Amino acid sequence: MPAIVDHDQRRRELAEVAARLVAEGGADAATVRGVAGAAGYSTKVVSHYFADKRALLLLTNRHAADRSGMIAEASQCDGPDAGAYACALLPLDEARRQNWLVWFAFWGLAITDPEFAAEQRAGVRGARARLTELMAADPRFRGLSSKGRADQARTLLTQVMGVAVQAMFEPEDWNAGRQIEAIREHLAALGAENA
Amino acid sequence: MPAIVDHDQRRRELAEVAARLVAEGGADAATVRGVAGAAGYSTKVVSHYFADKRALLLLTNRHAADRSGMIAEASQCDGPDAGAYACALLPLDEARRQNWLVWFAFWGLAITDPEFAAEQRAGVRGARARLTELMAADPRFRGLSSKGRADQARTLLTQVMGVAVQAMFEPEDWNAGRQIEAIREHLAALGAENA
Repeated sequence: MPAIVDHDQRRRELAEVAARLVAEGGADAATVRGVAGAAGYSTKVVSHYFADKRALLLLTNRHAADRSGMIAEASQCDGPDAGAYACALLPLDEARRQNWLVWFAFWGLAITDPEFAAEQRAGVRGARARLTELMAADPRFRGLSSKGRADQARTLLTQVMGVAVQAMFEPEDWNAGRQIEAIREHLAALGAENA
Repeated sequence: MPAIVDHDQRRRELAEVAARLVAEGGADAATVRGVAGAAGYSTKVVSHYFADKRALLLLTNRHAADRSGMIAEASQCDGPDAGAYACALLPLDEARRQNWLVWFAFWGLAITDPEFAAEQRAGVRGARARLTELMAADPRFRGLSSKGRADQARTLLTQVMGVAVQAMFEPEDWNAGRQIEAIREHLAALGAENA
């Protein structure tokens, strides 16, 4: 009897390997052959999941986005908290640094590729919508119109992205404490404005 | 008599061509051969200025940084203005979008290359130092200690980078007016905090 293969599970496993290769060596490092070698499968098996390098990179990016989303949602276990969600998106540890490295590699590709650029936009819009929603549960933002909350979620996510980009290049200067402080201070300034 | 060549001028001209190629096709598009073809020189002439692709990319990035710095300094013709300087760093028009495209291509490379990462850090530090300096002339920040101004310059540049990254992928959503407004509002919030 042939072994029963959980295809979703294997696809995630291969995307995980591809993400590590991209984080270590840039987008060029993610080849079907390279992933097969690193994961211990034949290129034939890997080709079954990723037709070509492009498909591999799209799924690697999606995987990083899914992982980032899962970590961010995990920050909500004590109830809705926009600040905790925003902080959880930052490159605070190796797993999250790896997500940002994948996105950096991806941005270089998105220059010339509308489909890659669309993926990036979808990720930003999803995070912005979730932050807008979470802000409704925060006394500092509850009094705003939903348009007002969406605007403030936009500046909060902008701060998250600016912090993340700098922290990736200056991890010592932007240690986890400073990254979190930047988001807390931004939230406090928004809250003071709304008071 | 051989023609007299202004080498600095030609190097800038070639870096300009390389920046356009990177902005259109990503880092892979910037080859010595490609630049020679696009600029109408032989590869031998181009190799005189850039030994290899790595040197070409480093100079292309430096060129984008120089151009960005020149545009930002041009915003100061009416006297020191931190807000105008910060806004001038944004991708508000095609020339500045091109700079950011070069940097995006570069970030993908900086993942695996300490020298490229160091260039990126130097650019951020330079902009932060200049903003700190300019804030000393602004009544909203004059009362702060120089440490306090440096901290606020840091959050301002963080906002600039977050806006820029998003504007590159959503130029319609983040049109020039909205980009500038995001920086003005950030400055206003900082000013209100200091009052």
